[in-house]
Amino acid sequence: MTRMDFKQQLEKYVNIINEYLDRCVTEKELPEKNLYSAMRYSLMAGGKRLRPVLALAVCDMLGGDLEEVLPFACAVEMIHTYSLIHDDLPAMDNDDFRRGRPTNHKVYGEALAILAGDGLLNLAFETMLESIIKSGANEKKARAAAIIAKASGANGMISGQVIDLESEGKQVDTEILNRMHRLKTGALIKAPVVAAGVLCGACEEDIKRLDEFSEYLGLAFQIKDDILDVEGNTEKLGKKVGSDADNNKSTYVTIYGLQKSKEILSDVTNKAVHCLEKFEKNADFLRSLAVYLLEREN
Amino acid sequence: MTRMDFKQQLEKYVNIINEYLDRCVTEKELPEKNLYSAMRYSLMAGGKRLRPVLALAVCDMLGGDLEEVLPFACAVEMIHTYSLIHDDLPAMDNDDFRRGRPTNHKVYGEALAILAGDGLLNLAFETMLESIIKSGANEKKARAAAIIAKASGANGMISGQVIDLESEGKQVDTEILNRMHRLKTGALIKAPVVAAGVLCGACEEDIKRLDEFSEYLGLAFQIKDDILDVEGNTEKLGKKVGSDADNNKSTYVTIYGLQKSKEILSDVTNKAVHCLEKFEKNADFLRSLAVYLLEREN
Repeated sequence: MTRMDFKQQLEKYVNIINEYLDRCVTEKELPEKNLYSAMRYSLMAGGKRLRPVLALAVCDMLGGDLEEVLPFACAVEMIHTYSLIHDDLPAMDNDDFRRGRPTNHKVYGEALAILAGDGLLNLAFETMLESIIKSGANEKKARAAAIIAKASGANGMISGQVIDLESEGKQVDTEILNRMHRLKTGALIKAPVVAAGVLCGACEEDIKRLDEFSEYLGLAFQIKDDILDVEGNTEKLGKKVGSDADNNKSTYVTIYGLQKSKEILSDVTNKAVHCLEKFEKNADFLRSLAVYLLEREN
Repeated sequence: MTRMDFKQQLEKYVNIINEYLDRCVTEKELPEKNLYSAMRYSLMAGGKRLRPVLALAVCDMLGGDLEEVLPFACAVEMIHTYSLIHDDLPAMDNDDFRRGRPTNHKVYGEALAILAGDGLLNLAFETMLESIIKSGANEKKARAAAIIAKASGANGMISGQVIDLESEGKQVDTEILNRMHRLKTGALIKAPVVAAGVLCGACEEDIKRLDEFSEYLGLAFQIKDDILDVEGNTEKLGKKVGSDADNNKSTYVTIYGLQKSKEILSDVTNKAVHCLEKFEKNADFLRSLAVYLLEREN
């Protein structure tokens, strides 16, 4: 797949996702209108849309129906967005910028930012349940929603965030670091990939392939994040560089150093790509995506 | 139904609920163990368990299976509990006591309190989805979960909280006050009643009766709350009396005065009880519950 073909396909996915998300949260002339504004502010702030793109790409790879996968793909993006809003709060990472714009609480205040986050998490489940009901309680859809729910909860992302918080200013070992990343970032990268597989009726072996692919991809994503926090460009990143060091966080770079981290990143990306061999040409986009993530500047 | 029979039945329901909740969040010897402690701290802090009790009582009234309704009943309690944790935060109502104990953030800090709230909201959906899957994607269960999801989100409770926040220090009219209560408190009292009806396969007309009953009950509950905030006892309430006045909040009492509020409360409770006529003897517990809520001291 040429770089241009990849970019066009990526843009197509992102447009489908943005159009869907745009319809999910609309401005309303109600007493609570600021809630909808605050939810939209972060949900429509752009970003790579990596998680929902992964779901749609897996769907296409398996020959599934994008319309059926879209609500679940976008639910994951809602969950991702809520987690960013809450992570940025003064009581958490206390970040002022995100995706090149002031963070939610900087614009709407802390109270509304907390509630906008709650609203987006809740909306993710409203969206999935609506889709489940529309299809007469389709079992694959219910299973996909349960996979996403588990990945975003105390067995997944939220525990990763807790480990991250409690590791600040401490030396943590690689076991804890890996657990943190697997939960905080990995779980919500794996969920859309595996959920899309379930939605498209993939066999157990293919689900296992998708599981391994997304495990490596999530790890690569996190290592790249750690590298970008050291040598990235604030303007391109849309957020402050060096915040890990400021917050005394253990990262791949603090543990392995920059050079070794880049080697691990390259190796892990290769392993991810390798998991997709069986899907041959149909996995071209996902392979290109893995390389794109390796080379990204934000 | 005698007062003693009622109390015994209420205690039976509360025990069933507490045992189920106790199993949903267990202490774990993991790096993220504080998350589970913080979630348990608020979830197992007691409280009336009104919302799940309503669901179980409706189930018994309709001759349904308590085991099938229990996950949905307890999911509503998880959502209610998360909303209290977030409401109590310094950025919101800034309350130090809840149910006679220090609030979650006073014990675990703001960051963990936010995450414990997120974890409980997420757990509510994990719990319901697990139940949906276990029964092979039962359509009634999916509909019940969707009803609860809508009630707790931006179309329900969260918008009520936004209106509440933005009304502080302002004179609000009765229209806004009623909208706030219907969303903030009413939605999550109605949801377990109607969801239990759906789970037990009630006909459309009975669902409508349950809807009206819970509409009045939620309103009565809120009016009583406003009255207790003026003439309640801090020790019995387990939280500070007079916080509405301190926060310059408009309430039924500030708008109608104490005497008129009590008259409205009595009238609305009667209307709630009236909605259950058709269910005759089977509604005895719910009728007693309405009166119990009218007379409660916390």
